[in-house]
Amino acid sequence: MDRERLLEVAAGVDAGVAARLRFVTELDRLKGIVRQTPVLDGERLENSAEHSWHVAMTAWALAPLADEPLDLDRVIRILLVHDIVEIDAGDVFIYDTAGREAVVAAEEAAAERIFGLLPAGEGAEMRALWDEYERRSTPEGRFAYACDRLQPLLANVAGGGGSWARHGVTAERVKAINGRMAEGSGRLWEVAEAILDACIDEGLLE
Amino acid sequence: MDRERLLEVAAGVDAGVAARLRFVTELDRLKGIVRQTPVLDGERLENSAEHSWHVAMTAWALAPLADEPLDLDRVIRILLVHDIVEIDAGDVFIYDTAGREAVVAAEEAAAERIFGLLPAGEGAEMRALWDEYERRSTPEGRFAYACDRLQPLLANVAGGGGSWARHGVTAERVKAINGRMAEGSGRLWEVAEAILDACIDEGLLE
Repeated sequence: MDRERLLEVAAGVDAGVAARLRFVTELDRLKGIVRQTPVLDGERLENSAEHSWHVAMTAWALAPLADEPLDLDRVIRILLVHDIVEIDAGDVFIYDTAGREAVVAAEEAAAERIFGLLPAGEGAEMRALWDEYERRSTPEGRFAYACDRLQPLLANVAGGGGSWARHGVTAERVKAINGRMAEGSGRLWEVAEAILDACIDEGLLE
Repeated sequence: MDRERLLEVAAGVDAGVAARLRFVTELDRLKGIVRQTPVLDGERLENSAEHSWHVAMTAWALAPLADEPLDLDRVIRILLVHDIVEIDAGDVFIYDTAGREAVVAAEEAAAERIFGLLPAGEGAEMRALWDEYERRSTPEGRFAYACDRLQPLLANVAGGGGSWARHGVTAERVKAINGRMAEGSGRLWEVAEAILDACIDEGLLE
């Protein structure tokens, strides 16, 4: 039985459930979107679905140290949806500035299509949370963004340079991109910068 | 730079951040815990980290159809932590009853160790949410459990039988185990049962 037949059977019993199962089964494809970051043992690259879980947990663990009061449940929801557009638009390396600009329209179209699989009000909520992440327009959006910078930084460092070494990204670029972390948490950026400085000292980052 | 050196550098700047980063980097190992369920295209088996994300999103999408009012943020938090003990105890196939019983003590020890990496109050919150899932002691725990049964059922059906076919699990067993879904959502179980009946009709399940 394929996915379409499964949804047809579901719709025969309960159209409301079936409509939401179309969205739920579509999300499975995020497991196939491969990122540039290694899993910590360096064995393979991580995908955007497991990354989304890990960064949500990162935010939860670090939220007690946030610079200002946060609605943690909102941060978690933001991080659960923040990469869903990659199902259509793919993952573009954060250091690929031209690629990042080129993908903006594709991500907008992806948000329209994928969140549009849900009933209007429910899709709109997820879409608004994705916008909040992209625009970093709230304390929650900025803290989510900071955690989304920190998690791959840790994986890259513990993986011996990972994507930076592979792509020849310089220390200056790593600091410029990750320095945006400070908008969401000065405290996290202070630690991250010390880790990057230690990497420079140890010759892992040029 | 390995993980211990990274945590040492972090501790030199901010011991509070470093303590939580020990927990955060430990979580990476959940990406290496392989489950019996295929990803929908059948290409490989899913891991417990990406599963945790997917089932949290499943709950979010289906919560508007729950039988009783739910605190959805609590359901999401329960599902984010529900499989973390597998980092130490491994994933035991739900149809392996003897294996499930044997692993209970290992899971308790795992919860103690892993949530114990966090400062006491913070670790206790996650631990309590894991207990809530295991005991299905609240509407949120029961709904989380129902979604955790539904997501692999969908993947198994769309993957042509997946883990059931591979392990020779009968229709009767599949219905008995997944029927517990009804405790959390009668509506979801009604749809799931119709999908299973269609699988029996089509000879996918014996």
